[in-house]
Amino acid sequence: MITKKNGKLKVIPLGGLNEIGKNMTVFEYEDEAVIVDCGVAFPEDDMLGIDLVIPDFSYCQKIRSKIKGICITHGHEDHIGALPYFLREVSAPIYGTRLTLGLIETKLKEHNLLGDTKRCCVSPGETVHLGRYFRVEFIHTNHSIADSAALAIKTPIGMVIHSGDFKIDYTPIDGEMIDLQRFAELGREGVLLFMCESTNVELPGYTMSEKSVGKIFEQIFDETPDSRIMVATFSSNIHRIQQIMNSAYKHNRKVAVIGRSMANVVKTSVELGYLCPPPDTLIDISETRRYEDNRVVIIMTGSQGETMSALSRIAQNDHKQVEVKRGDKIIISASPIPGNEKAVYRLINDLMKKGTEVIYEGLMDVHVSGHARAEEIKLLHSLIKPKYFVPVHGEFKMLKTHAHLAEELGMNKKNVFLLGLGDVLELDRGHAKITGSVPTGAVFVDGLGVGDVGNIVIRDRRHLSQDGLMIVVVAMDRDTGRVLTGPDIISRGFVYVRESESLMEEARAVVRDALSMCEKRNINEWTYIKALIKDTLKDFIWKKTKRSPMILPIIMDIDY
Amino acid sequence: MITKKNGKLKVIPLGGLNEIGKNMTVFEYEDEAVIVDCGVAFPEDDMLGIDLVIPDFSYCQKIRSKIKGICITHGHEDHIGALPYFLREVSAPIYGTRLTLGLIETKLKEHNLLGDTKRCCVSPGETVHLGRYFRVEFIHTNHSIADSAALAIKTPIGMVIHSGDFKIDYTPIDGEMIDLQRFAELGREGVLLFMCESTNVELPGYTMSEKSVGKIFEQIFDETPDSRIMVATFSSNIHRIQQIMNSAYKHNRKVAVIGRSMANVVKTSVELGYLCPPPDTLIDISETRRYEDNRVVIIMTGSQGETMSALSRIAQNDHKQVEVKRGDKIIISASPIPGNEKAVYRLINDLMKKGTEVIYEGLMDVHVSGHARAEEIKLLHSLIKPKYFVPVHGEFKMLKTHAHLAEELGMNKKNVFLLGLGDVLELDRGHAKITGSVPTGAVFVDGLGVGDVGNIVIRDRRHLSQDGLMIVVVAMDRDTGRVLTGPDIISRGFVYVRESESLMEEARAVVRDALSMCEKRNINEWTYIKALIKDTLKDFIWKKTKRSPMILPIIMDIDY
Repeated sequence: MITKKNGKLKVIPLGGLNEIGKNMTVFEYEDEAVIVDCGVAFPEDDMLGIDLVIPDFSYCQKIRSKIKGICITHGHEDHIGALPYFLREVSAPIYGTRLTLGLIETKLKEHNLLGDTKRCCVSPGETVHLGRYFRVEFIHTNHSIADSAALAIKTPIGMVIHSGDFKIDYTPIDGEMIDLQRFAELGREGVLLFMCESTNVELPGYTMSEKSVGKIFEQIFDETPDSRIMVATFSSNIHRIQQIMNSAYKHNRKVAVIGRSMANVVKTSVELGYLCPPPDTLIDISETRRYEDNRVVIIMTGSQGETMSALSRIAQNDHKQVEVKRGDKIIISASPIPGNEKAVYRLINDLMKKGTEVIYEGLMDVHVSGHARAEEIKLLHSLIKPKYFVPVHGEFKMLKTHAHLAEELGMNKKNVFLLGLGDVLELDRGHAKITGSVPTGAVFVDGLGVGDVGNIVIRDRRHLSQDGLMIVVVAMDRDTGRVLTGPDIISRGFVYVRESESLMEEARAVVRDALSMCEKRNINEWTYIKALIKDTLKDFIWKKTKRSPMILPIIMDIDY
Repeated sequence: MITKKNGKLKVIPLGGLNEIGKNMTVFEYEDEAVIVDCGVAFPEDDMLGIDLVIPDFSYCQKIRSKIKGICITHGHEDHIGALPYFLREVSAPIYGTRLTLGLIETKLKEHNLLGDTKRCCVSPGETVHLGRYFRVEFIHTNHSIADSAALAIKTPIGMVIHSGDFKIDYTPIDGEMIDLQRFAELGREGVLLFMCESTNVELPGYTMSEKSVGKIFEQIFDETPDSRIMVATFSSNIHRIQQIMNSAYKHNRKVAVIGRSMANVVKTSVELGYLCPPPDTLIDISETRRYEDNRVVIIMTGSQGETMSALSRIAQNDHKQVEVKRGDKIIISASPIPGNEKAVYRLINDLMKKGTEVIYEGLMDVHVSGHARAEEIKLLHSLIKPKYFVPVHGEFKMLKTHAHLAEELGMNKKNVFLLGLGDVLELDRGHAKITGSVPTGAVFVDGLGVGDVGNIVIRDRRHLSQDGLMIVVVAMDRDTGRVLTGPDIISRGFVYVRESESLMEEARAVVRDALSMCEKRNINEWTYIKALIKDTLKDFIWKKTKRSPMILPIIMDIDY
């Protein structure tokens, strides 16, 4: 590694700030750059019809030739989900731990990108060299997915530690505790900048160990001698799935797995040895018929009430392979992510109406978070003792709370930076400041389209969703402006037409009057006539209904 | 009262089950009926463009001549909001406590219905006679609005107690505790049926006293010697507003109130004596300019992040009278109602980004619920000891939990009824059973329209909101089927057209081909041609974009 100590390190977050999702950060030193994570966000309620939100890659395209690699902290969608879109624009090798790479590979295969992408498997504790300036050490952490890592990014002017997503689990399922000693050691060596996740920083105390959920599962299985058990959880929570399988085995039950992403993750994790189904336990869903109810557990996706997920389909009697019946016990082993509460409650209500017993977080502790709470975050700060601090991975209110926490621990307020997306934080050994910003934002993915749905399209969708639309069609003689046919009015999403015939008839009359006024005055300026139709009809409809459908006047000019 | 003891009492919930909102219950005995509450629900996310949801009144219209009166338990929208719509269909006197009637009168005035509606003011403890069969006693309770009541509905075959919404507050702000003694007395007399609200039944323990929030306000005011203070809360929570005003007075601050519903409620409550602003404290918002920041408190609506509310407008710099500035302290004295979480968090983030300090429930106990938790509910059950029990006011999971609670308290499972909307529970002295159901459901209010937006319209709005629409217009010769002009394609909410010109051009070609095929084969069956255009274009667009916009083919037939 070249030790050129008078350069500047630029740190540029392209996601993961003021939102939970699409995490991505650029680290740039002279003519080299490293990217950490490349995630998607899920659309907000008002992003109508959007499937995914990805970071704006335009800055990465600009510095394309500098990029020496992408380091991924763990295999969650908000950290890996945008890779297929990124790799179409920029080619760079991916560094990650074994399971993380396994999950990425499944994804790249689906997008036909696997062959073209170089992947480098990194063991926890290992350091990789990226270009001349960057050395990146992967440090084992605990999180709700196995094989998670924090990164120590060593640059000529000092070390950056990026926490990734983490919690401190003293009794993790795989026995591999977060490497606190290494954080301490690096802290002793001196850390220039700490970037730490903020998801649960507003919550006091500690997050419980994943093992505590296992105990609850044991209890539930003990108390369920007769019924079939179904568990919905996050597909990536392999340790949760392991614990369910263990309980099933102990209670002489077979386990089947349904839901596409769940099946994918289980397959990858078993292949790589991260998930170890007890002997003779995992069966295909089609085989469950051969067993009594009390010998079966079905693990599935849908803990967030997602419309197309296995559990939602089951609740709607719309799943090909599984039907719920009175007496089934259904465990929703997850918390609703903010925004999903109503969907989850609706799901619980629907399942209960079918006579099933539903156990959810409100009733028993069937879930723990994968994110550190305030006391755990304090511990990491205290081991690392950085010079500068940037809170990441959180809404603004969380970042702000995290900044306060750092100050309470004794950090100088001037050394804590609340960055915005795209802000460029420039550091050398003695200074850090925000020096500018790069273009950034959210790019919408809708079907196959990336970025072709922007704010205008979304605004139209919003308008259409509120009051529907009215189309006015008129055929006119191109030369004379005489009305040949029409006006016809067609509406969708406005009113139930059969019950509003007189309103539609009146509306037609209003347009007809406007048109004949134009005819009388010999106006055949199409733009003017269209605007007139629009305004006249809009006023009439508002007066009559207090609604504002989108109005689209269409004039067909005929060469008569 | 005629004591005809061999009749049957019918109890029919028209709202408030499997949902929080639009509470309404019909009690029917022979040729007489009484209605309890008449509320609205707020639209779910998927009820696009809908302003309000009201109960289906068709059964009430059918028994119109039987209805002797409407008894209202308290003045919240989910108990009074549908009255204006109901009173247009059915005329009946309204019974309520003084503040409840005051709030109803404001509402009826807005709808020009005040003159035609008989209102009867009932004091807590008083019993009113409705027809020959019904006597209704109003029993004072505690809730997040003053002057709330439970109802003891005495009928020839026995007594029904309806809890309304309640909590048990041993130290209420107005000193008037829930009349537990009266519940006990009535319980001793014998209660046939208890209908009890279920909002917080899933939560263990007790809800804190409203006074506990006052202590937190005191603390915050003490710790804020310099800044302006703004508080957002529910407009109807008069006791909360009273406490804020008291703290303001003690700290030598003036109070201004903004937001239409907040101003309405404060006006009514002050006039009726339920809210007593300390001397020289209440000022107009325009006067706040004359005072230093540390002499001002502004109370406002918007604690749920509602788009058009005072606080949201302030956060968007879109409020005429108030602008936030760095250093302002903003207290959000409410919990997000399920479904509103994201909107509230967004609001908090936006306000914090402006440099204000925002205090919300996650940080300090600036809110308590108005609803009883499990232990309070148990107390009421134990005082009343009913023969039959129907849990109301809650989603199915809450009703179910409430049913379990009643069974744990020793009720016979057979005497607990989980009713569905419209179910008819028929009771006599010795029996109760569900004997049928009446038409019921949700009626949508959109602008001035009541019920003219149904499922088809909503389905269209949902389709439009997801992928937008494409309109294909063709003018054809009526006789020959020859294309005169077009096809033209217009899209909205689909793609950003300027960047997708080639796609639109290809789409036009696909339709043109389909049309010329028809011309060649002499097909001039309009329905067939339209279906062909729709299918051809749909397939093409799906293949190219994996999206399904609504496709509207319009053929103008010209008499050429």
